[in-house]
Amino acid sequence: MSRYDREADPVEFGRVVTLTDGVFAIALTLLVLDLALPAQAADVPLATTLADMAPHFSAFVISVAVVGTFFQAHHELLSMLQKIDGGLLGLTIPYLGFIVLIPFAQSVLGERPDEDLAFAMYGIVLGCASAIGASMLWHAYRRGLLREPLVGRTARFEALRSALPVVVFLSSAGLAFLIGEWTALLWISIWPLDSILGRLQRRGT
Amino acid sequence: MSRYDREADPVEFGRVVTLTDGVFAIALTLLVLDLALPAQAADVPLATTLADMAPHFSAFVISVAVVGTFFQAHHELLSMLQKIDGGLLGLTIPYLGFIVLIPFAQSVLGERPDEDLAFAMYGIVLGCASAIGASMLWHAYRRGLLREPLVGRTARFEALRSALPVVVFLSSAGLAFLIGEWTALLWISIWPLDSILGRLQRRGT
Amino acid sequence: MSRYDREADPVEFGRVVTLTDGVFAIALTLLVLDLALPAQAADVPLATTLADMAPHFSAFVISVAVVGTFFQAHHELLSMLQKIDGGLLGLTIPYLGFIVLIPFAQSVLGERPDEDLAFAMYGIVLGCASAIGASMLWHAYRRGLLREPLVGRTARFEALRSALPVVVFLSSAGLAFLIGEWTALLWISIWPLDSILGRLQRRGT
Amino acid sequence: MSRYDREADPVEFGRVVTLTDGVFAIALTLLVLDLALPAQAADVPLATTLADMAPHFSAFVISVAVVGTFFQAHHELLSMLQKIDGGLLGLTIPYLGFIVLIPFAQSVLGERPDEDLAFAMYGIVLGCASAIGASMLWHAYRRGLLREPLVGRTARFEALRSALPVVVFLSSAGLAFLIGEWTALLWISIWPLDSILGRLQRRGT
Repeated sequence: MSRYDREADPVEFGRVVTLTDGVFAIALTLLVLDLALPAQAADVPLATTLADMAPHFSAFVISVAVVGTFFQAHHELLSMLQKIDGGLLGLTIPYLGFIVLIPFAQSVLGERPDEDLAFAMYGIVLGCASAIGASMLWHAYRRGLLREPLVGRTARFEALRSALPVVVFLSSAGLAFLIGEWTALLWISIWPLDSILGRLQRRGT
Repeated sequence: MSRYDREADPVEFGRVVTLTDGVFAIALTLLVLDLALPAQAADVPLATTLADMAPHFSAFVISVAVVGTFFQAHHELLSMLQKIDGGLLGLTIPYLGFIVLIPFAQSVLGERPDEDLAFAMYGIVLGCASAIGASMLWHAYRRGLLREPLVGRTARFEALRSALPVVVFLSSAGLAFLIGEWTALLWISIWPLDSILGRLQRRGT
Repeated sequence: MSRYDREADPVEFGRVVTLTDGVFAIALTLLVLDLALPAQAADVPLATTLADMAPHFSAFVISVAVVGTFFQAHHELLSMLQKIDGGLLGLTIPYLGFIVLIPFAQSVLGERPDEDLAFAMYGIVLGCASAIGASMLWHAYRRGLLREPLVGRTARFEALRSALPVVVFLSSAGLAFLIGEWTALLWISIWPLDSILGRLQRRGT
Repeated sequence: MSRYDREADPVEFGRVVTLTDGVFAIALTLLVLDLALPAQAADVPLATTLADMAPHFSAFVISVAVVGTFFQAHHELLSMLQKIDGGLLGLTIPYLGFIVLIPFAQSVLGERPDEDLAFAMYGIVLGCASAIGASMLWHAYRRGLLREPLVGRTARFEALRSALPVVVFLSSAGLAFLIGEWTALLWISIWPLDSILGRLQRRGT
């Protein structure tokens, strides 16, 4: 399989980026499709209809933040790469497949906020996306696709930070059947935890 | 957090641009999804159906102009930047979250043109998007991300022009409950006002 | 208003291209949303359902060809430009507004193939898009945004070729009330006519 | 018709790439629109609803893999090109037209998994897309648009590998009426077959 270098094959390197960014942009935009006024509600006051849609709005806000975070993480991964090879392209497709599932998981969450399974499914989708994201970093590290080799402390912290959402999201899928809608708090905890890890990482260098 | 320079990291700088443009392109295109022929109208003449859709068409035209104006404003902001940092990327996500809400606010407006709340909501969505847009300029100014420093008269006019839509849209949200559908005129007034400010700015230089 | 040069401001020049291509890509893709299996048809054999959808399939094929032709025309326009100015960006937004309306006009055509108004509306949407496209070329010519000046024979042929779809589509909107579904033949006639003009143009040089 | 060179006209070369990638990204994302919770199912447990959606999930997974494979194939084609001419652009539009049909074919498959015609249609859509893809390579080879001339063994293998999906998908359309849902296995067989051909090709060089 071919390898595409950042400097030598800018068009080919760029296409993988374009496809990924395109999917992120569309996934981000599809989130709003879940916010449709129910057709049957034409005689109900708008304020009531909007109030009934509250779980949909919460699911929308969480999902925008989640898609944004995944974009930012993928952005950082790519800025570390010197080359893209066939294997990384092969991982990109299922990765995007899970990103694309986020609007579906969000709409299930907005539609059935009282079912634990809806929370479990959201956790699985995001856990799988995180897991593929982490294995993309691992693959790039193993095959020498990185701009600068990852060593020592930096390597351990990068590993820790890419493992964090995998562990939290996948374990939240199981816990959802015990703690119900509180699962959302688990997801939100990823942001402060990651920012603590980031601060620890910078302090050491 | 990393900083991406226009010349030194063209791929990373470009990705933020691509994601943003992608979201703008999709938001622009989603506006048309609101223009669906109602399913139950199969035996009504097409002319009647289209006439009944008049509020949807007005909302479509205003929204295309609004999304276009936001794109143009973001375009000008970005052309002033030398670098993008983590903070600006962090502001981009909620900014795009509000841009993505425009098709929803538009469809509510087309569906319920007689409810003041529909106009208020449209004003809030656009006011928040404008406010985040203005704080992106402010952030870039404070952190020295601009290509050329903003000083004196230019700085005051840039501040004034980015505050204009924030003030008009947010105040329109309150006024909507008094003036109903005339709120749309307030929104439209932003174009001539901004063009007057632009002319004053150029005259002075 | 600022001017963005192809070489001096590649990011800014490129963003207008990206937004436009994004809208074309999405408009092209939205065409397929019209091809949904009707929900009530679950007990009808698939072959019957698909046969009933014949007008939708014709409208899909014509629309893919139309969007493709507009993309190709815009592609040629842009390859002639050296610079993009505020006025051209200002024309781009309503241009994209009409491109975005194509999936709507197509779905009306597929839904009501027996109403002349559906054909008239399709003609108006495409006629307006062509007219704005032609005025973009005219604007670029007047403001000196072109890479090479358009003169003499080439200028006359470029004018003729950009006027052709404007005249055919807009006149088809009126003729639709006389000739009904035969209007589609008028539209299709643009391809051979344009290719004849293209051949005449090349023969002379 | 004009020819756009990779180095001499990067913007024009790039636009064809952007449009194509945009369509791939959107097609990939539209696949998820088929995964909507049925509206009438509000009182059925979510687990039952999701179980009933099993054919939709299978169709989603196959389609993500299929769109990904087409993207990868188009990626490899484009990385072999030095120039894009009008003919190739003319082939790109119907190619994208068929790519755009994949979400429709998928939704028919998910909706009517018991009808052979649904499998036949999926095979035809993908067979036609593959056939246009193969003729793009053929056109580029004939018109000298490739970076390096294709000769001897490499040429034979490239021809074989681009013919493989055409033959499998188109013949699957006929076989679908005999073997029903087992047709999906035929499609899946393309991956190991192509990887065997790839290995044979590399062994020889």
